[in-house]
Amino acid sequence: MKREYDTEDDIAALATPRAVGAIAVIRTSGKRCLEKAARCFSRPKALKAVEGGTFLYGKILHPTTKEPIDDVIVSVSRAPRSYTGGDCLEISCHGGIPGVDAVLAALREVGFRDAEPGEFTMRAFINGKLDLTQAEAVASLIDAKTKAMHTASLRTLDGAVSRELSEIRRILIDVSAAVEVQLDYAEDDLDDAVVVPAAELEEAALRLRRLSDSYKVGRLMREGVKIALAGRTNSGKSSLFNRLLNEERSIVSDIHGTTRDYLEESVTIAGFPVVLYDTAGLRRSDDRIEAEGIERAHRILDACDLVLYVVNAVDGETDEDCRRLERIRTPILKVINKIDLKAPPAGFNGIPVSAATGEGLSGLIEALADRLKSEAGTSEPPFAVNERQSQLVRQALTAVEAALTDNGGAVLDGIAIELKEALDAVGELTGETASPDILDAVFSRFCVGK
Amino acid sequence: MKREYDTEDDIAALATPRAVGAIAVIRTSGKRCLEKAARCFSRPKALKAVEGGTFLYGKILHPTTKEPIDDVIVSVSRAPRSYTGGDCLEISCHGGIPGVDAVLAALREVGFRDAEPGEFTMRAFINGKLDLTQAEAVASLIDAKTKAMHTASLRTLDGAVSRELSEIRRILIDVSAAVEVQLDYAEDDLDDAVVVPAAELEEAALRLRRLSDSYKVGRLMREGVKIALAGRTNSGKSSLFNRLLNEERSIVSDIHGTTRDYLEESVTIAGFPVVLYDTAGLRRSDDRIEAEGIERAHRILDACDLVLYVVNAVDGETDEDCRRLERIRTPILKVINKIDLKAPPAGFNGIPVSAATGEGLSGLIEALADRLKSEAGTSEPPFAVNERQSQLVRQALTAVEAALTDNGGAVLDGIAIELKEALDAVGELTGETASPDILDAVFSRFCVGK
Repeated sequence: MKREYDTEDDIAALATPRAVGAIAVIRTSGKRCLEKAARCFSRPKALKAVEGGTFLYGKILHPTTKEPIDDVIVSVSRAPRSYTGGDCLEISCHGGIPGVDAVLAALREVGFRDAEPGEFTMRAFINGKLDLTQAEAVASLIDAKTKAMHTASLRTLDGAVSRELSEIRRILIDVSAAVEVQLDYAEDDLDDAVVVPAAELEEAALRLRRLSDSYKVGRLMREGVKIALAGRTNSGKSSLFNRLLNEERSIVSDIHGTTRDYLEESVTIAGFPVVLYDTAGLRRSDDRIEAEGIERAHRILDACDLVLYVVNAVDGETDEDCRRLERIRTPILKVINKIDLKAPPAGFNGIPVSAATGEGLSGLIEALADRLKSEAGTSEPPFAVNERQSQLVRQALTAVEAALTDNGGAVLDGIAIELKEALDAVGELTGETASPDILDAVFSRFCVGK
Repeated sequence: MKREYDTEDDIAALATPRAVGAIAVIRTSGKRCLEKAARCFSRPKALKAVEGGTFLYGKILHPTTKEPIDDVIVSVSRAPRSYTGGDCLEISCHGGIPGVDAVLAALREVGFRDAEPGEFTMRAFINGKLDLTQAEAVASLIDAKTKAMHTASLRTLDGAVSRELSEIRRILIDVSAAVEVQLDYAEDDLDDAVVVPAAELEEAALRLRRLSDSYKVGRLMREGVKIALAGRTNSGKSSLFNRLLNEERSIVSDIHGTTRDYLEESVTIAGFPVVLYDTAGLRRSDDRIEAEGIERAHRILDACDLVLYVVNAVDGETDEDCRRLERIRTPILKVINKIDLKAPPAGFNGIPVSAATGEGLSGLIEALADRLKSEAGTSEPPFAVNERQSQLVRQALTAVEAALTDNGGAVLDGIAIELKEALDAVGELTGETASPDILDAVFSRFCVGK
């Protein structure tokens, strides 16, 4: 369905989850939203006269029978000082579902239509209250599964990415201007040395690279980091698995031991959602399918971002450990377990822990956190950058890098085109040059009521 | 845990469902709630100075690091013009769970404690904003499963029950006063005729009976009405069952065919939540367990509020139908099905329908609605009266009826005691004479944030 970009139409939607709670909030927006809402409100005159930034207590009434539907608080924001930039009215009602449905029905009756997903935020974008990266941050704020993702989204909503992009844009425009000037003169005076401000271009590339790195963090934060426990039987992988789950608060619990032949649990480490895999079960397979079992264990290890390889302190690192370690292609963090039974061998380069007593666990978590941060490629606070933005940033970066390469060859025409490509990508990032199709794709991923 | 009846303590709770939504609302209340909230708000001066009935845009900040936690709207109500009667502040934040948790953590850090279930409404009760029947109506508004239950709760919240009780109380006090006066004089002048205003007592009894009836409706609305389909094989019970489910919107769907040997589905008819049972499966049992099967079918029929007995129009009412009908002790509504195949026999006192074509379905639903209303014992709009209230109403009614009986015998002392009992019950209904234990029991059934 193609959206209409009408921001004056009166729309309404439940903005709180459709479940039983103490209160529910219905959001409305549109040019005549106050006037229409007044037709089903017990104090129509007060509502129409109310100043922005204030709220009123009253009743939603059935528009024709005038029967009371709910006791509510209506909050009024007037254009342009509102979320969407237009007139807005929010209705706080009692959180029962039949009541919420009755209020929504009354609003339809007086002329509101149901809002599309993301329509309030789309209006804010169209009215210039947010750029597209900020609008997308609203969605990622709501979907944030961890505090770190929430913080990153909030930074982006606050305009951190927008400011970065506007800086990059300024640089690219400056460089473009310098190139264009020379292109104009080039025909008359071909022998003169071409001067493209390379330092500025380098600066733009650096900033774009930083944004691109930030995406990597964002992806890990959104999709989670996969960590597998590996090691010989009896190294205590399963005890360590359970320890890690108990040390860190589990945010999603989902045991698939019986169906997937391995255990999988979600925890948060250093703000990253982590999925821990315990492949211990695979070792239990009988000889006939042993080869297949090992094959599957390695497929899991290969698909992970990090392998926590557990060595038994009692035996030390055995030949078998070495053979296993050699086969692993994923980054490895070595752990020596059971230090309550025997001290780790001198010179062992791994984290000493005791899954049985909990000793060394905090050190392991710290080491994991360091690894995750370095995997993510940055220690700076990340932005919330999504897949769409990441692609455009890479597009802009590729174009800027091409311009830098072309610079020596003095192919001014080519550089001008590359700079134009980079600027187009940046424009699409902020939404300045985004087509209706792109906006449609961005906002349709929002939830209703946002 | 015993509640403390401190209404000045600063409390906070998430008031919207703990699920991902566009926005979440955190409610706070307490004597210093504005001052404390200002310590984690980006515009502390503006917040402390703000007038009641207005809202502010700003950021929740970490109280020590001052890192932004979320972009929010804070709405301020000042005592006594608020829900609780004290100062209140509501925070609308983005609907992601880590963000909500971070805001709640910041509030704890600046001195808010987590609100107990129903604590906001308990404060409203203690501060005289609501009586106990209204407070209980808030809970039943939220829990309402149907529009009718929602409407009944809203009537009670609006004070319909409170007004009724205050009227009853006034009558009982008048009668008591008349009795007390005579008691004072009785010792001096024992031979005089005792005059108890019987008409007024009758009026009180009538009003109490109406409240008691209303409870019956309320119970049916809350707990649902059980209707079973019965009839011979081939009467089309299952088709009719499916028709009824399709005609009326199903609110809960729960098929237990395999485990319970009968089908059970929930629909709403005339505002009543109805659980429909189709016992068809029981007929399929083989000879060995046929007796047991029939026994179980009858146990279901006995437990229902109404039996919809389906007769096949092609065969008419057979001897077997008569035998079956005789065994049913529950109220019966007869239906003649398959009228698309054959017209119902003349003089048949049942609702003609065709489950196959849908003919007559609206007539059947209307007849069911009439039955439900008459089962409920009143056609008046019901109040939301709960089990606690029902018991107290019956207690008051029993006392008033005893006083009416005693009236002839002129046992003034006894009548005075009975009137006192009735008044006590009424006081406990409104909460005027309710003990802390009772308040505790009432409010602990609320959800958090209400």
